[in-house]
Amino acid sequence: MTLPVKDRFDLPEGMIYLDGNSLGPLPKGVGAAVQKVIADEWGQQLIKGWNVCDWMDQPARVGNMVGRLIGAQDGSVVMGDTLSIKVFQALAAGLEMRPDRRVILSDSGNFPSDLYMAEGLVALKNAGFELRVADPEDVADAINDEIAVVMLTEVDYRTGRMHDMGAITGLAHAAGAVMVWDLAHSAGAVEVDVAASNCEFAVGCTYKYLNGGPGAPAFIYVRPDLAQTATPALSGWLGHAAPFAFDPSYTPAPSVERMRVGTPPVLQLAALEQAMTAWDGITMAEVSQASLRLSERFIAEVEARCPQLILLSPRDGSVRGSQVSFGFDHGYAAMQALIARGVIGDFRAPNVMRFGFTPLYLDEGDVLAAVDILQNVLDNRRWDAPEYRAVSRVT
Amino acid sequence: MTLPVKDRFDLPEGMIYLDGNSLGPLPKGVGAAVQKVIADEWGQQLIKGWNVCDWMDQPARVGNMVGRLIGAQDGSVVMGDTLSIKVFQALAAGLEMRPDRRVILSDSGNFPSDLYMAEGLVALKNAGFELRVADPEDVADAINDEIAVVMLTEVDYRTGRMHDMGAITGLAHAAGAVMVWDLAHSAGAVEVDVAASNCEFAVGCTYKYLNGGPGAPAFIYVRPDLAQTATPALSGWLGHAAPFAFDPSYTPAPSVERMRVGTPPVLQLAALEQAMTAWDGITMAEVSQASLRLSERFIAEVEARCPQLILLSPRDGSVRGSQVSFGFDHGYAAMQALIARGVIGDFRAPNVMRFGFTPLYLDEGDVLAAVDILQNVLDNRRWDAPEYRAVSRVT
Repeated sequence: MTLPVKDRFDLPEGMIYLDGNSLGPLPKGVGAAVQKVIADEWGQQLIKGWNVCDWMDQPARVGNMVGRLIGAQDGSVVMGDTLSIKVFQALAAGLEMRPDRRVILSDSGNFPSDLYMAEGLVALKNAGFELRVADPEDVADAINDEIAVVMLTEVDYRTGRMHDMGAITGLAHAAGAVMVWDLAHSAGAVEVDVAASNCEFAVGCTYKYLNGGPGAPAFIYVRPDLAQTATPALSGWLGHAAPFAFDPSYTPAPSVERMRVGTPPVLQLAALEQAMTAWDGITMAEVSQASLRLSERFIAEVEARCPQLILLSPRDGSVRGSQVSFGFDHGYAAMQALIARGVIGDFRAPNVMRFGFTPLYLDEGDVLAAVDILQNVLDNRRWDAPEYRAVSRVT
Repeated sequence: MTLPVKDRFDLPEGMIYLDGNSLGPLPKGVGAAVQKVIADEWGQQLIKGWNVCDWMDQPARVGNMVGRLIGAQDGSVVMGDTLSIKVFQALAAGLEMRPDRRVILSDSGNFPSDLYMAEGLVALKNAGFELRVADPEDVADAINDEIAVVMLTEVDYRTGRMHDMGAITGLAHAAGAVMVWDLAHSAGAVEVDVAASNCEFAVGCTYKYLNGGPGAPAFIYVRPDLAQTATPALSGWLGHAAPFAFDPSYTPAPSVERMRVGTPPVLQLAALEQAMTAWDGITMAEVSQASLRLSERFIAEVEARCPQLILLSPRDGSVRGSQVSFGFDHGYAAMQALIARGVIGDFRAPNVMRFGFTPLYLDEGDVLAAVDILQNVLDNRRWDAPEYRAVSRVT
């Protein structure tokens, strides 16, 4: 099954893009939407744009669009800042909810920035606070009554290995801990139901599967029953109950909007809002199933034709996100050779070749063409060329 | 003297824009610059944009452009996040530098979000930390050896009243405190020399006088001798010494870039980078002098022709930023009536009519035309109309 929405994207001729897990491609209409905000809104309305163009409502409005893809009810997601900032807010709010506890538990499969932000928070708070990091397979056992907050990324950024959101949230709650999920590699990739998981907080970014563009803002979900009590920690004026009253002291908004901080990035939000229309008329169940089918086909073809590569992702599709990783000692150079031939994946140290399967703009023909090129690169040692050895930076 | 750069802006026909202190107008070329990033960079390069289009270097590159307007040496300013976030980072770093002290001192003339962020930080840290807020005229006397960090906004957002950066920084240092300046209403408005002031940190936004557009990112300056020791607090991966090594633990970059947090807002930064070219070939001394001349003319004309208004800004131009505020009991409605007639200023409770004088795109003819319309609104009580009474939100 191919989703009938490939024509909603502007992909370069001759490129097979298997890196939507890092930066999604340009959806059609985004250029025009941003141009409208620049020329007609900012250019013509200037300061009045905040009112007449509804800029101030963007974070909540776009939050609802994102919320629908992760099983969040309207009014429980708000956009802003970066994922790292939203991780910090969720963790700080979680610690505040368990004042008798001192430990944040995460795992070594988490994206490093999440761990860094937790480190920073723990250092700020002093007084015996601790970040404890377990291996992903041990994290369930490490949940106990010392833990204030469990913070995990559902889909491992290197291997695609998935945690069971419902089960781990249940363990966290049974131990009296607050649960924070990072959905960076989940939102728009796999079926997520934050409400059913019953987690207190979820955060994520929008420049990967949601195709919001480089630097697109992050989102935060707050479970609705906590929206009037969760501490924002980064208590900026746009999270105030009445920002334009210019009160000398802070009163948080009685909603998820308390997690807003400063002035919203209007241009980035306009790009994202347009990008979200690429999801019109399709369901996450369809996307997830189509992604699984593409991934399974890729794994089967690579294993049949490229014995040099070792599957690093889980073989069981039910515990794998929409990306597939293979290990290869010359993975960095091989990925450069692939990229030079129009197949865009990425590389993660030490040896991970990572490929994302995003069925909004990929179909089986793309997958087969990519494997043809991969096989050619490997069988002919195309990676063994000086131009592919220099280390570069790819997020 | 008129600065010969008005043609670098796209202002709507018939609008006299005296609100550049809130949101700067659209500089020419911004639409094309952002379009290039969307269509040619994101659209064509996708993930490769991070390398081949130098997106990753934007925050430092644009930081240098901003730094030149505030007397900061290259490599001491970096862009990102919002001003509220940068306030938090500067305050947290300052507290860390004075571990034996517990008080942040600010004043009631500060922008509320700065105070809110300090409140949030103090609450996070617990353990007797305190935000102390003095009146602006008493703040110098309130600096003593209890104070860890003095945080002030140089130019009062309501009245334009200016603090003496050098003198207050000297008092702070004499008392052993760290100095943080918020330059939201200074950068691009008045001459600032952060290096000469010797302050440890300075922060500001770029959507006002720097014309970066709605949601443009903030900046932070770190005094060069502190760039290898200041604690970032919000320790995100892009402030790491080696973000793409994906280390499990955080090591800050050995430079101001440690104050970066998450993925930079590439579209907003592209808009800002183009907007900064409007400053090519002019100096802040010229801008400041031209602004003073426009403001003085405005004050003189208003006082001669509009006796209904009371000057709230300092009469002495040497202690006033580039904005002028008048008090009027019907100020809200009067401002709406002015806006309806093409003169755009803004209103701040309870009675402040605020006008900004930004000589990049304003000249004496604009000032005189604005006063004509203001006099007409006041003399004919044009503000006394039902359509001007509804409260709206203007940032």
